[in-house]
Amino acid sequence: MHEKSNPLVSNSHDPRFLALRNLQTEKGRVQTGNYLIEGIRHLARAVEQNSRLEQLIVVPSVLSNSFGQELVRKVQQSGVPCIRLTPDLYRELTLAAEPQGVGAVLKQQWSSIHSVKPKPDSLWLAVESVDLPGNLGTILRTAEAAGASGIFMMGPHVDPWNPACVRASMGSLFSLRLVRCTARKFAEWARSSRVTMIASSPNGLLNYKEFRCRWPAVLLIGSERQGLSQQLMDASDFVLRIPMHSRCDSINASVATGILLFEISNQLGRMVPVKRK
Amino acid sequence: MHEKSNPLVSNSHDPRFLALRNLQTEKGRVQTGNYLIEGIRHLARAVEQNSRLEQLIVVPSVLSNSFGQELVRKVQQSGVPCIRLTPDLYRELTLAAEPQGVGAVLKQQWSSIHSVKPKPDSLWLAVESVDLPGNLGTILRTAEAAGASGIFMMGPHVDPWNPACVRASMGSLFSLRLVRCTARKFAEWARSSRVTMIASSPNGLLNYKEFRCRWPAVLLIGSERQGLSQQLMDASDFVLRIPMHSRCDSINASVATGILLFEISNQLGRMVPVKRK
Repeated sequence: MHEKSNPLVSNSHDPRFLALRNLQTEKGRVQTGNYLIEGIRHLARAVEQNSRLEQLIVVPSVLSNSFGQELVRKVQQSGVPCIRLTPDLYRELTLAAEPQGVGAVLKQQWSSIHSVKPKPDSLWLAVESVDLPGNLGTILRTAEAAGASGIFMMGPHVDPWNPACVRASMGSLFSLRLVRCTARKFAEWARSSRVTMIASSPNGLLNYKEFRCRWPAVLLIGSERQGLSQQLMDASDFVLRIPMHSRCDSINASVATGILLFEISNQLGRMVPVKRK
Repeated sequence: MHEKSNPLVSNSHDPRFLALRNLQTEKGRVQTGNYLIEGIRHLARAVEQNSRLEQLIVVPSVLSNSFGQELVRKVQQSGVPCIRLTPDLYRELTLAAEPQGVGAVLKQQWSSIHSVKPKPDSLWLAVESVDLPGNLGTILRTAEAAGASGIFMMGPHVDPWNPACVRASMGSLFSLRLVRCTARKFAEWARSSRVTMIASSPNGLLNYKEFRCRWPAVLLIGSERQGLSQQLMDASDFVLRIPMHSRCDSINASVATGILLFEISNQLGRMVPVKRK
């Protein structure tokens, strides 16, 4: 690693470090349009998906993994600027129990709702609200695994770039199309694009196992506490119910999303087996 | 609330407070055989399920909910000792973003593996290892919702009484039969009780959608990072695969558990719809 071209930041008042720490706040992310990722897996997936890297962050004494070192070399060769951090400063940025000594600043990628033309057999997800960023990340990861094409994010606090969400998404963030819009705009899009809107509720009339999907389709997710808004519930074509054992009235939002997405997606028969790397 | 019979603890060195804080550690829970719960919902479910309450914890200035106040009165009338905590001390014990001012110390309830005689149509879960206590709690909640009869816990660090697990379980902990045992003892139990052992793996030979279950059955869950041990994989009757979209190789352990448990459970047709309270 060339020391000249990769300045070492060791002071917590250094503006280059403060700029990174700023990305841990929603305000900082909104102001810059950037976000942070960390870890070798995330960086590798970002590169694989041609995500736009603004800056590489490396802690040479911590980055001992040879695949990670090779990855850093490649990214640098492609012209991405790099800074080195001391382990102390890096620790302030990481959520990892065992930090790998590598991270990056990425440009947030949003698609305009007007540019989204759903393919005839495509499956989408729309998140109105999620109480925990980690749950949102798990939902993104599940959506990619179930073959969803992209995710509509409504509500002011649905922030896929939150560090806990980024972390739980395990890199799915980079391959999904993300659209930010209001609930009204979303409902208009679904109607005009003839996309079947599928909601779920403990009081839904239709057992999810008896549902036969009309494509393209979008599954709507509300908050764990309040569920979906009445506005979107009313706009939906179907309200599914996941029947539960007697004493239970709900399950975790990301688990429910997984059960519904995989059930619906399986009706398309698009799933292909993959080997674990 | 009678002040005499409900002593106020306000000093962080008070042994009664230290005893509570001790229950936040695995060591403290093992030593005492007790664990902590917090919040009105958890207390209500514990009472409903006749869980053994050792002590009630109340913060009168925080407990403003009238249902919660009534619940506390009922529990006290049944003879459970109660202490009052100052809000400051209570805050050290709670994981809640909006603490409700009530909690309790409960006795851990374990069933002996020798006492578990599976009914012909029963579904069980066996957890060999889970990396995050919150994931384990979500799995417990999902297991109850899917109608599982109980959960076998193997491995030294699978601790359902961890506060993050208790919290994520949303009270499911109180209604499930919990068994602690080694992997070997578990496999012996399954074989001698003629319980079908179902594992899952990205390399499993059988698509979970094509699986037809023989009852009674037990679903085996391994750690997110390492999966199930070879010992349990070899002992299993079936290894299922959840096919995923091309670039994905895995999903969150609790989401995968939900997809598999609901798929298997649905084959029994035991699910009944419930109304949200």
